Amino acid sequence: MKHMGRPKSTRVTVRDIAAAAGVSPATVSRVLTGQAVVAEETRAAVRTAMERLGSPEPAAPRRTARPGAVFVRCPYLLTDYFGTIVTAVAEALDRHGRELILSAGSSAQHNGALTGLARRRDLAGALLVLPVEDSAALEQLRRQDIPFVVIDPRTPVPRDIAAVSASHFTGARNLTAHLVALGHRRIGFINGPEDWLASTSRHAGHTAALAEAGVLIPPDLVTHIEPTSDWGHTAAARLLDLPRPPTALVAFNDKAAVGALRAAHERGLRVPTDLSIAGFDDDYLSRTSIPTLTTVRQPLEELGGLAVSLLLRLIEGTALEALHVELATELIVRDSTGPVPDGRNRRNGTT
Amino acid sequence: MKHMGRPKSTRVTVRDIAAAAGVSPATVSRVLTGQAVVAEETRAAVRTAMERLGSPEPAAPRRTARPGAVFVRCPYLLTDYFGTIVTAVAEALDRHGRELILSAGSSAQHNGALTGLARRRDLAGALLVLPVEDSAALEQLRRQDIPFVVIDPRTPVPRDIAAVSASHFTGARNLTAHLVALGHRRIGFINGPEDWLASTSRHAGHTAALAEAGVLIPPDLVTHIEPTSDWGHTAAARLLDLPRPPTALVAFNDKAAVGALRAAHERGLRVPTDLSIAGFDDDYLSRTSIPTLTTVRQPLEELGGLAVSLLLRLIEGTALEALHVELATELIVRDSTGPVPDGRNRRNGTT
Repeated sequence: MKHMGRPKSTRVTVRDIAAAAGVSPATVSRVLTGQAVVAEETRAAVRTAMERLGSPEPAAPRRTARPGAVFVRCPYLLTDYFGTIVTAVAEALDRHGRELILSAGSSAQHNGALTGLARRRDLAGALLVLPVEDSAALEQLRRQDIPFVVIDPRTPVPRDIAAVSASHFTGARNLTAHLVALGHRRIGFINGPEDWLASTSRHAGHTAALAEAGVLIPPDLVTHIEPTSDWGHTAAARLLDLPRPPTALVAFNDKAAVGALRAAHERGLRVPTDLSIAGFDDDYLSRTSIPTLTTVRQPLEELGGLAVSLLLRLIEGTALEALHVELATELIVRDSTGPVPDGRNRRNGTT
Repeated sequence: MKHMGRPKSTRVTVRDIAAAAGVSPATVSRVLTGQAVVAEETRAAVRTAMERLGSPEPAAPRRTARPGAVFVRCPYLLTDYFGTIVTAVAEALDRHGRELILSAGSSAQHNGALTGLARRRDLAGALLVLPVEDSAALEQLRRQDIPFVVIDPRTPVPRDIAAVSASHFTGARNLTAHLVALGHRRIGFINGPEDWLASTSRHAGHTAALAEAGVLIPPDLVTHIEPTSDWGHTAAARLLDLPRPPTALVAFNDKAAVGALRAAHERGLRVPTDLSIAGFDDDYLSRTSIPTLTTVRQPLEELGGLAVSLLLRLIEGTALEALHVELATELIVRDSTGPVPDGRNRRNGTT
């Protein structure tokens, strides 16, 4: 009713509203979709402009031939871990008839593709797996006119950017609580790269579980690695060769845990009789190593599928109720963890 | 000189040549690029038509904005194996400024994408990893106007279709020859799916190495599996529980070999003292399992990189000297293979 006076053929665009409200078109989009946090006075200015001019027409579709493609960037080798996420993304996009444009591997860390994304008319959106960009760079991308979702963020993601991840904190806390219940107090913590959100969240979970048992982590029991078997092996060797070695090791992923198994084997330590070892991911490795690994299941397929589903809703302009989604992890107890060896805890834990 | 009489503005097209020679435009392309085998009389007809009409103009580029994208289909989970190939493809395409459109996972086995590929103006070519299609379907794709290369073909590929693979035959022969040199004669062969070219080639290599030692393979020592740890475990268990068990096991890949290690462990067999086990791939697993695995290195990165390089030459219309390329594999001897146990070979090998 408000815009009955306007001739029917003149379509109001987001740009018109933006000009009238004195804000950017991207801000108008954010107000319309509810995708982002916008200051109340900005929101009011946009609302006033819309009351005056009318609601903008939906944007023309970016392509006519087929629905817009989705740019997926995974700047790492597509291992069992990242490859499982990307496969789930590919399958979900296929179900929705959307094409996947892939940028993967080390070249994807340097190609600066993000800067041009918003200008591409063939793209409807993007999915960024463990992005190398910091928060400021992601913020800059958000200000442009392309919906995107971050999978497994590397650093804390601004609250107005959609992100899906596994519940690293809870997963790590449950795992360490399991070891604490078995009597372990000196637990070596082979964590991931220091600047990864997954590492800081897991460290917090590990710390919390130990604190509940009245234990603070000695700094010499914490180490950071690249998540590979070789690094896991090296880190475990160092921890096991300490004057007062830990009675249990928690590794950042199953690959590193398998490296730790080897370090234990080289020292004649039986797992779990002499030493408990736990991984993270529930990689197929954890079911085939000798002994099988206690681990935390990361819902990789679900991460990929959910990220696609959030992205499609952003593309459709639907407001998302929660922009940060954490999927539950699950503690899986197998053969590599057991009670603390007799006397070890007393001897090592209190002196 | 031959076509001086024609007005300069009239461009001769492949279609003109085809009509004059009484063949399809695709056949003319094949004669021009040398990409395919064409009967000599057809070739002569095309040559005659070109002498009369002149050489065709190069085809207009499919896109103006950026070079045509490459469609990559890998109808499997992107594991450490397939994911490594696809990552190498992504990195190589990125270096050439070409986009990668990915179809992966189980949905890629059913989406019938190949039928529409040739009609797409945004695509310059395609890479098919271990395609589910049979030779006839690949032949049909070849007759259309889109260059493609097969990576790791599942079935024998017609000689006029470009394909890259690892030298499965030589790799398997070298591996079995290594076991034969250690005195093994009863070797359990845990092969891949029966209809895979890799399986038949490896079976041939295995057979050849044993035949050189004067041994024919007893049928009960050969089994076919899906290449996973679980299947490797099951197959190894069956072989080890035979009344006359083998003294060595060769598995289709390292994952299956790790499953076999577990089956040996469950039976109290020490590897390699009581039983030798070998894998294939040189997956990182083979370096971290206990014991580390003797295996055959598959050049996965090179497979991906070479496939891209062949495809780009096909796209440019360059004739390829060899359409089927086999990359060398390499025997890597580690700790899981050793001499046949004393007396075992005599007892088991000749009665």
